[in-house]
Order: sequence, then C-alpha cells, then structure tokens
Amino acid sequence: MSARDGRSRLCRALGYDFRDTALLERALTHRSAAAANNERLEFLGDALINLVAADRLFRARPECEEGDLSRLRASLVCEPALAAIAESLELGDALVLGPGELRSGGFRRHSILADAVEALLGAIFLDGGFEPARQACERLLAAPIAQLPEAADLKDAKTRLQEWLQGRGRGLPVYEVLAAEGPPHRQSFTVACRLLDSGEFSEGRGASRRGAEQEAAEKLMTRLMAQVQTHA
Amino acid sequence: MSARDGRSRLCRALGYDFRDTALLERALTHRSAAAANNERLEFLGDALINLVAADRLFRARPECEEGDLSRLRASLVCEPALAAIAESLELGDALVLGPGELRSGGFRRHSILADAVEALLGAIFLDGGFEPARQACERLLAAPIAQLPEAADLKDAKTRLQEWLQGRGRGLPVYEVLAAEGPPHRQSFTVACRLLDSGEFSEGRGASRRGAEQEAAEKLMTRLMAQVQTHA
Repeated sequence: MSARDGRSRLCRALGYDFRDTALLERALTHRSAAAANNERLEFLGDALINLVAADRLFRARPECEEGDLSRLRASLVCEPALAAIAESLELGDALVLGPGELRSGGFRRHSILADAVEALLGAIFLDGGFEPARQACERLLAAPIAQLPEAADLKDAKTRLQEWLQGRGRGLPVYEVLAAEGPPHRQSFTVACRLLDSGEFSEGRGASRRGAEQEAAEKLMTRLMAQVQTHA
Repeated sequence: MSARDGRSRLCRALGYDFRDTALLERALTHRSAAAANNERLEFLGDALINLVAADRLFRARPECEEGDLSRLRASLVCEPALAAIAESLELGDALVLGPGELRSGGFRRHSILADAVEALLGAIFLDGGFEPARQACERLLAAPIAQLPEAADLKDAKTRLQEWLQGRGRGLPVYEVLAAEGPPHRQSFTVACRLLDSGEFSEGRGASRRGAEQEAAEKLMTRLMAQVQTHA
C-alpha cells in the first residue's frame, strides 16, 4: 500500500479529512525522524483526550464519585489502552520514524504508538476545532468505554497490589507516613509504599493517609507491571 | 449583598449566564455542605482548563518544546494560580460551605477556591458546551498567561531546587538511580532525590536519567513549597 493510500485509510478510520495535510504528516512523525515532529501535537492531543474522556464518563457514570471517574479515565487513556487504539488503526504502518527506531521496531513500541494517537487528535483539534476532534476521539474511545468495569468492580490500588504480590508468593507491602503537613482538619499526607523483599518503593500524596497510600500503591503497581512487560 | 446579587455579579465576571442555574449552585457547593456538591464538576472543569491552557500556550509559544509547554501550563493551572483567579472573582463570598469549614475559614482556603474555579468551568461546559466554556476560561487565564515567563527564563527543576536549598543554607540534594528498565535504547529510569539533612525524598521517572531527576526535583520542590505555605 502506498503512503498516500495509508493516509486515506487512516483518515477514513478517524472519520476526519484534514484541510491541512501537513498537520496529519506531522502527527505521524516521531522525533527520531525530524525536528518537525509530533511532540507538541501530542501535548495538545493528550489534553483533548482527557477532556473528552472526562465528559463521556461524567455523563455515562452518574453514580461515580470523582475518584472513580479519575480511575476509569486513567484506564482509558493509559499508554497500553492508547497503543491498542493505535493498533486498531494500523497506525504503526503509517508512522514516520528515524532509521534507528525503524531497525529496532519502533513502529510496534507502545509509547510511540500511544503518542501518535494523541498527536493525531491534537492535529484534528488544531485543523478543525473542538467538535470534529471530539467526534473522532469518541469514535476511538467507544469500544474501550463500553468495556469499562462497573464502578463497584473497580478494586482499589492497595487491594490490586496486594493480590498481585500474593499471586507471586511475595510479601505484603509496608506503608509508612513520611510527612503530614498542614492544620489538623486539612492535612496533606505523604506515604511510602515499600516492598521489603526487593527494596522497591514508591510514594504517594493525598488529603488522607488512605488516599496517599492508594496513590503510592497505584504507582508501585504501575511500575511493577511495566517491569513485567519489559521482561516478557 | 444578597446571594442572588452575588450570583449575578459572578456570572458577569465569567461572561456567562447559566441556562440551568442549579448547575451554578452545585459548582459553588463544597462537599462539606451537601452530598450534591461540586466534586464531579471539578473533575470535568480540571480537564477543560487543561485543554484550553494547552491550546493557548501551543499557539502563543511556537518556540516551546513539549516539556516547556507542560511546565508553563502547570504554573497556570496549579492550585495557587487558580486560587488567585478565585480571589479576583471574589468567589469566597459565593461559596456554599458546611458549618465546620465556615468556622475554620474554608472560604479562604486555596484548595477549596481552586476547586470551585474548576467546578464553575465544568458547569459552563455542561450547560453551554465547549465554546462558551473556552471563552470563560480564556477570559480567566488572560492575565496569568500575559505574565508567564519567557521559555528561556524557565529554570529547570534541579536548578530551582538547588538555588532554593542554597538560599536557606541547606545541603545539596543527592540523586540516586533506583531502577533502569527496558532495552538499552529505550530505557525508563526511576530516580530518587534525597535531602540528607532532613531525610526527605521524592522519586521521579523518565525516559532519561536527567528527565527522571528533573521530575523528582520538581516533586520535592512542590512539597517543600507547600510546607512553607503551611507553616507561614
């Protein structure tokens, strides 16, 4: 398939035709290939996806509190989720990469794919404004949103971390308050979450000790998952 | 001034009249006052401000790379900056707070004020759609954006942290790589930033050691600044 055919197919999948095709080209260009790359568009697109996802979840989940909405959104817009969207668009074939990234299979790398999805949506926002960008974004998010768990099934991060460690025969994490600042009725907590067997740790902050522990557990969980992916 | 006059003045300052005034009321209601409070609207408004600020900065700062755009936006939408906007709107007078928060001066608290600004913009987005919300948001951000530093004047976080500590006669921070994951050409680094005199630490991640150090320094700097504010 020619590059031109690939671009046409991509635009059909996005449901959007660019007025300024240079924006489309730029959205597909990784920093390894050119100084005129997609990093700034990615910044814009990331913000767009976050708003569109927030809006969809706000309307679709009237029973959810802010914390649940945040967790649901994080699962929608995380790198693996965006990379899956990129794969459904066969975006890897359309990317413009430098020779080093080409050789090492950059067109399959989750971070590069996810960034390109964001950049594409940023480019549509710039080219056509909010409404077309919202439509393209909702189209890409429709299937992932339909597959989201019910709020009641959202396990908190401490529980997920504990279950993950137990499933691997590892010890439970230890939580430790590093700092508690502010007046008693409005404190801010910083908490460390440590794995005694490996020495790994993370830290989280929150308006409550429990909230800070959840953030620390979430961060450690994310890191552990990334290690598993890397070593798989 | 009656509550009704206060609401009218606020709408004039925002440049927006609500079709559904219950949304305005909800945006002003802190969780200490009612179950029907502004927390979900805040989630929506936070995403809206982030997109509008990203868009304005993207256009206004063509010379800025993604990292600079992120830093500039963070300074625009951080809690103290949003609280300053709230103060310019005299939002404290319009808030609906529970008795405990009223007694302890919640109408002056930065976190409550900043959250209410976000909730108001979320309410406009819900009531009138993107365009009116964008206009109201740009109106509120116009003065802060005009006061942003030039990109060249943006000091990186490690430099700011070092200068801040030196200005207080404290020792330099120590950076330590906690983890380096992934294949050599695409590693992910986790770095700790420690203050030996107080034992405080933070951690950062990034695609380079330097990037991870910057993130760790930024987080520690933010925490140190929050402590100063708290104890001031």
